[in-house]
Amino acid sequence: MESPIAIAYDAQGLVPVVVQDWRSGEVLTLAYANAEAIARTRATGELHLWSRSRGELWHKGATSGNTQAVRALRLDCDGDALLALVEPAGPACHTGARTCFFSGDLEPPAPHEVLPGLERTLIARQRERPEGSYTVTLLDDPALIGAKVEEEAEEVARAAREETDDRVDNEAADVLYHLLVLLRSRGRTLADVAAVLDGRRPREGSPS
Amino acid sequence: MESPIAIAYDAQGLVPVVVQDWRSGEVLTLAYANAEAIARTRATGELHLWSRSRGELWHKGATSGNTQAVRALRLDCDGDALLALVEPAGPACHTGARTCFFSGDLEPPAPHEVLPGLERTLIARQRERPEGSYTVTLLDDPALIGAKVEEEAEEVARAAREETDDRVDNEAADVLYHLLVLLRSRGRTLADVAAVLDGRRPREGSPS
Repeated sequence: MESPIAIAYDAQGLVPVVVQDWRSGEVLTLAYANAEAIARTRATGELHLWSRSRGELWHKGATSGNTQAVRALRLDCDGDALLALVEPAGPACHTGARTCFFSGDLEPPAPHEVLPGLERTLIARQRERPEGSYTVTLLDDPALIGAKVEEEAEEVARAAREETDDRVDNEAADVLYHLLVLLRSRGRTLADVAAVLDGRRPREGSPS
Repeated sequence: MESPIAIAYDAQGLVPVVVQDWRSGEVLTLAYANAEAIARTRATGELHLWSRSRGELWHKGATSGNTQAVRALRLDCDGDALLALVEPAGPACHTGARTCFFSGDLEPPAPHEVLPGLERTLIARQRERPEGSYTVTLLDDPALIGAKVEEEAEEVARAAREETDDRVDNEAADVLYHLLVLLRSRGRTLADVAAVLDGRRPREGSPS
């Protein structure tokens, strides 16, 4: 959040800000900021914007409690648009929706939306414990969920060696689903695992 | 792409369009469209915009060949911003960068950027075949990559039963890395697997 980037504000002193969920990648809101809002954002680590309708500085979530912690600010190639990557404390939209972009072509979800959606479903199952839920059975049984991950790994290995693409995709889906349940059973998330993978990423000049 | 959504164009007849990669979730560009550009986008399935600098209709990629196939158009809660989910034929930025947002806080990557980044790395390894690459060794040996997925599954199962959170995250990262290599060895992608998982998603009123 400290990188020196030169923002090209428009004639009204504003810059559009694309607000994106740091963990899930979901685009939450398109909003606007002026230089003061950006300065407040940098100073506090929470997203500040400019409300064009109210004509005032807007500390996102100050009223609702749904503030957004800013993890990164990026600028586009010609400096006239910002990307704010945030961890939201609650729904981004004033309607109570998770994202403001909830109209139009929602189905099927984009590929990148599927794993975050599955993680949300698993959290809901863990909280609501619907009767007869396979996920709940797995969450309650550490030995079973581990055994299932192993079983599905064996099946995807066999599929990769000698079966169709369709079988490979299906068995890989089984591994991923059970791996996400295993993580949930331990209170871990895909974001935790992503951090480990990123830490192993080869840096400039290192071998692969 | 056919959902009837009412766009609130501004006084100049424009609406901002957040362009997002359908597969990776990466925000590529913030641009603008008028009603004609939206109509052309719907008619052709390729992103059309309005170039504010040139003052003309802009078929994205018409010159460079880096067109963007539009998979979904979504509208925000007050109708004055669009989200276009696209499959780009090449870099989104005129600089040749994959995304226009390449300045500012790029490190560490957001959690949602890690798996797509790993998939790109695996594709590069497969193409460039750097000497001594562990990934290349795995890609060349269907039996080995399958065996590694099984081995790591066993280790994450053990970690989930009796080890620390840190061990769980690390072993899950091992499973994910090897699963992505296995998929790559068969020319399959995380998006293919996501489609399978989405097909299994419980719909309204169905059990979990």
